[in-house]
Amino acid sequence: MITESIPGVTLRTKAYVYFDGKCVSHSFTLPDGTAKSVGVILPATLTFNTGAPEIMECVAGSCEYKLAGSDAWMTSGPGERFHVPGNSSFEIRVRDVYHYICHFG
Amino acid sequence: MITESIPGVTLRTKAYVYFDGKCVSHSFTLPDGTAKSVGVILPATLTFNTGAPEIMECVAGSCEYKLAGSDAWMTSGPGERFHVPGNSSFEIRVRDVYHYICHFG
Repeated sequence: MITESIPGVTLRTKAYVYFDGKCVSHSFTLPDGTAKSVGVILPATLTFNTGAPEIMECVAGSCEYKLAGSDAWMTSGPGERFHVPGNSSFEIRVRDVYHYICHFG
Repeated sequence: MITESIPGVTLRTKAYVYFDGKCVSHSFTLPDGTAKSVGVILPATLTFNTGAPEIMECVAGSCEYKLAGSDAWMTSGPGERFHVPGNSSFEIRVRDVYHYICHFG
């Protein structure tokens, strides 16, 4: 199932722009204070570092990703999620546009 | 005054990507159903067409803009807004990154 919209959030208006705009995200909080973000990654191969563990949920498009310590590129498409440990990193390879929700913790 | 966050919104998770990613926006609705969006424009000179009238509110960075039928480039910075008539167009020139809220109507 694809999460098309999220109700009741407090949206931060200023975006985060990473890698010269190859990744753009807007952060928000749920009523209980939980922080998340929505974003897009444009065609690129990028490496992200994590502080807290992250769950990347695809809402449109797709990506390939490779977790630190793995040699395997995996694919993630609409409605699918992948988990990234905290204090780690992952590579992500996007050919079209990858739309995601990032959940922390 | 800068609008740093907007509470109580329903956020659409899939972004709109324009001009090969030079403009990325996420749309949302207020509790009363009013539609708005937050977005960023990366360094570029772009032309946007309007259907409904739009008010562009800068929340960070800055832009220069020129409305259809005008020869004057105007500057818009944090906390400032400019109005664009409906069924019209405007050029926008961004040197750094322009973060905005788009209000319709």
